[in-house]
Amino acid sequence: MGIDSKGKGLLIVLSGPSGAGKGTVCSALRKRVSETELIYSVSATTRQPRQGEVDGVNYFFKTRDEFEGMIDRGELLEWARYVDNYYGTPRRFVEEQLNQGRDVLLEIEVQGAKQVKERFPEGVFIFLLPPSLDELRSRILERGTETEETVKDRMNVAVDELEQVYHYDYVVVNDRVESACGRVRSILTAEHCKRERLFHNQPDWLEGL
Amino acid sequence: MGIDSKGKGLLIVLSGPSGAGKGTVCSALRKRVSETELIYSVSATTRQPRQGEVDGVNYFFKTRDEFEGMIDRGELLEWARYVDNYYGTPRRFVEEQLNQGRDVLLEIEVQGAKQVKERFPEGVFIFLLPPSLDELRSRILERGTETEETVKDRMNVAVDELEQVYHYDYVVVNDRVESACGRVRSILTAEHCKRERLFHNQPDWLEGL
Repeated sequence: MGIDSKGKGLLIVLSGPSGAGKGTVCSALRKRVSETELIYSVSATTRQPRQGEVDGVNYFFKTRDEFEGMIDRGELLEWARYVDNYYGTPRRFVEEQLNQGRDVLLEIEVQGAKQVKERFPEGVFIFLLPPSLDELRSRILERGTETEETVKDRMNVAVDELEQVYHYDYVVVNDRVESACGRVRSILTAEHCKRERLFHNQPDWLEGL
Repeated sequence: MGIDSKGKGLLIVLSGPSGAGKGTVCSALRKRVSETELIYSVSATTRQPRQGEVDGVNYFFKTRDEFEGMIDRGELLEWARYVDNYYGTPRRFVEEQLNQGRDVLLEIEVQGAKQVKERFPEGVFIFLLPPSLDELRSRILERGTETEETVKDRMNVAVDELEQVYHYDYVVVNDRVESACGRVRSILTAEHCKRERLFHNQPDWLEGL
């Protein structure tokens, strides 16, 4: 990535309301950007591994005690509890990759992104936006067997999440996955060209030029 | 360009030391980005039109009196005098395009860019960098029949110009024209995705979503 290739990598946080299409955009990115350029953060969880899942690849599988120890020692960039299981982002994995100059992508819920922002404000925060509220409603409906009440609840949650956009650096509208994916890649490239980032990493590069 | 398409366009200032390859990168951009997406600023000059040059296309051709009037009335974003002729960037043309939501590209010397920065700080300032001082020297030599003394002078000027990099938002290394061109386009895309720019243009877009 040019003259800051020896510097630290970027932490890119991709978030947005459910229904914005975070997972789809991330899969598209995975297909287009090689692992040498962009690393996908591996989450930790206390849930049981499913068939074929590999520790350290799909998740870091932890016992409840281990996970709670990580929380206590501040070893997680963010964490949450869903039903009976913990999920979180180990800080160490992310920092190791960044220190080796690799960019790391975190695809994450709005609440988690808020925690990451507090603990890692130098990250690049991208908010993925559905093209319209109507489209968001259809996407929530498509997810399957929701009652009218659940859809209403989900919509309300989504609107609350939309208000978090004010804490983000960039907004990407997910009108078409291809375009959204291209915009995220452009943001990555542009961030690497930022003068301040360049000088933060290599204040004396002018001498070396 | 997504949800701020109704807003103002961006003024992109591409500058850098002579020998960085500003002209080459701009020609490459012109070939790849259509005029509906990116407008190239038309300069004003007092020099005589050459065969085939069209007023308002290649330059705005002005008399010396007209040009000095524009200077006095602050109608130029930047101007300079080379030998016996004035050259400058009319503010009106740029602002008309921006108000119509079009991005405008200014390819300009470092001194001119400094003037634009003072008069138009909301522009996006990109500094084009040669890959190395050795490469810069070869490029200056390639320009033709320079004496050793002139080359030395030009190198000194270039190094002075390099120090202006501190006033820019982005730094793009012109290692290969294709890559440099791609980076500039990525910067444009990313700037359009900036949350603050979005809200500056359309503070109430959330309601309309």
